[in-house]
Amino acid sequence: MLLFARVSIIGLGLIGSSLARAVRERMPTVRLTGHDADAGVRETAVRLDLVDDVADTAGAAVTAADLVILCVPVGVIGQVAAEIAADLPADCVVSDVGSSKAGVASALARALPGVALVPAHPVAGTERSGPEAGFAGLFAGRWCILTPAEDADPIAVERVAAFWEALGARVERMTPEHHDRVLAITSHLPHLIAYTIVGTASDLAEVTRSEVLQYSAGGFRDFTRIAASDPTMWRDVFLSNREAVLDMLQRFSEDLSQLQRAIRWGDGDALFDHFDKTRAIRRGIVEQGQDDPRPDFGRGHP
Amino acid sequence: MLLFARVSIIGLGLIGSSLARAVRERMPTVRLTGHDADAGVRETAVRLDLVDDVADTAGAAVTAADLVILCVPVGVIGQVAAEIAADLPADCVVSDVGSSKAGVASALARALPGVALVPAHPVAGTERSGPEAGFAGLFAGRWCILTPAEDADPIAVERVAAFWEALGARVERMTPEHHDRVLAITSHLPHLIAYTIVGTASDLAEVTRSEVLQYSAGGFRDFTRIAASDPTMWRDVFLSNREAVLDMLQRFSEDLSQLQRAIRWGDGDALFDHFDKTRAIRRGIVEQGQDDPRPDFGRGHP
Repeated sequence: MLLFARVSIIGLGLIGSSLARAVRERMPTVRLTGHDADAGVRETAVRLDLVDDVADTAGAAVTAADLVILCVPVGVIGQVAAEIAADLPADCVVSDVGSSKAGVASALARALPGVALVPAHPVAGTERSGPEAGFAGLFAGRWCILTPAEDADPIAVERVAAFWEALGARVERMTPEHHDRVLAITSHLPHLIAYTIVGTASDLAEVTRSEVLQYSAGGFRDFTRIAASDPTMWRDVFLSNREAVLDMLQRFSEDLSQLQRAIRWGDGDALFDHFDKTRAIRRGIVEQGQDDPRPDFGRGHP
Repeated sequence: MLLFARVSIIGLGLIGSSLARAVRERMPTVRLTGHDADAGVRETAVRLDLVDDVADTAGAAVTAADLVILCVPVGVIGQVAAEIAADLPADCVVSDVGSSKAGVASALARALPGVALVPAHPVAGTERSGPEAGFAGLFAGRWCILTPAEDADPIAVERVAAFWEALGARVERMTPEHHDRVLAITSHLPHLIAYTIVGTASDLAEVTRSEVLQYSAGGFRDFTRIAASDPTMWRDVFLSNREAVLDMLQRFSEDLSQLQRAIRWGDGDALFDHFDKTRAIRRGIVEQGQDDPRPDFGRGHP
């Protein structure tokens, strides 16, 4: 009774196509329909056999669904929700995978009054984009955060939670506002900073681009990975989670100024104390299974 | 004639012990002597059979060497160089592996007048520390930068270059000042920023430590790796490369302010344009063999 039988995925990029592959692998009896606004992506989806049916419009993709998952940039979620409103079957549950949640929740509520809404955010991804970048194991062991409204249908929430757990994810629930503050520090600010430093490096006149690439193993290369993420997705994340991102950025800037001052004044003890306390966080992440325990992420070394 | 026959490694942490292992593997005829100021590390070096002889003092470690490599934090390089000065054989070449070079070059020159000096910086490492963290392949395919003085003995420079190439590294030469500016952006600033954001996250009251760990796969975990690096080493790097780090930090802060402003004023085009141009850098790094080509550094996924 908790299981969905007909799932529709709107948006077949990295997340949508991973979701399709994961559903295929873990729930082989589910009838999968997909749609993407980009005709080239739809063709790729057919070629890769990502779903049972590729629909030409978002509306046509949802007519028989009991679960619709919007896997589009958060900036267009309201618009896409409006496109499917007339075609949604009664009792169909609508969810999404957006990286910010307060704005998404209100956009969905405005576009789909009376529909069972369970906004979700699987905290998983890679720096790649598009339907060919997805893979079935993307969500295994990762967290999926549900941010249902207080008056959300509890059965719908249970069903969406069971859906993600069946894909190997771990499920947590919180308010959209708390989600947006947590993700501002664990995801949005890191991306903003990575995008910034990669831009700073590429604008230097006296240090050549080729030197930046050559000596990137000193630390810089780590930042280039997330700075290669999808620009449309991230533009929308920052615009939709503005308040929380700006607040975290302010705290970060204050902390950076403190270290800057310690460097300028040669305060080695302050630097050491700061650098010493951050090690425990890494240990915690590895212990919780949220990162590869091998040194250097296990990369490049035998 | 270019080869060294008796190599002494002072400091047996991650880099020194990796060097010992690499020499053992690639130059089995070399007689290796090692020393570390920490008696516990010396015991570990004996237990792991890292070198042929473990000496109790730095001076005793160099009496028969034709190459000495100082693998200690840059803040104590001058002091360690002074400790070995009286025991250095004539014609012995002295090098190091420090991450900043202008300060190191002058500290070495002051402590060891008349000695053939070839300061070096292998751009390689992991977030681990200590003699057990090292491994022979650490330098394979990485760059080693030599920063000899203008009047350095060209044969000594050639011999040190050949030494690193024999360990699998690629060798480049530049002035210590240029090195320090290049590494300020490719290594020192990334570490400073990573240390900062991990500190910012751990100081939040409203977002719990456990939430930071749980949802770190959204990007934050990438920063925790380099923020787990050795605090003594990094304190010394920032103190010794102060000018270049502060200059790069200033540029970074200006660029961050520009993105901050774009977020505040909802300038999506400015955000998109910035995020779009940073992808090419990642591609270049992967094409140059300086990072793992697989998505997400290849970690955690089958």
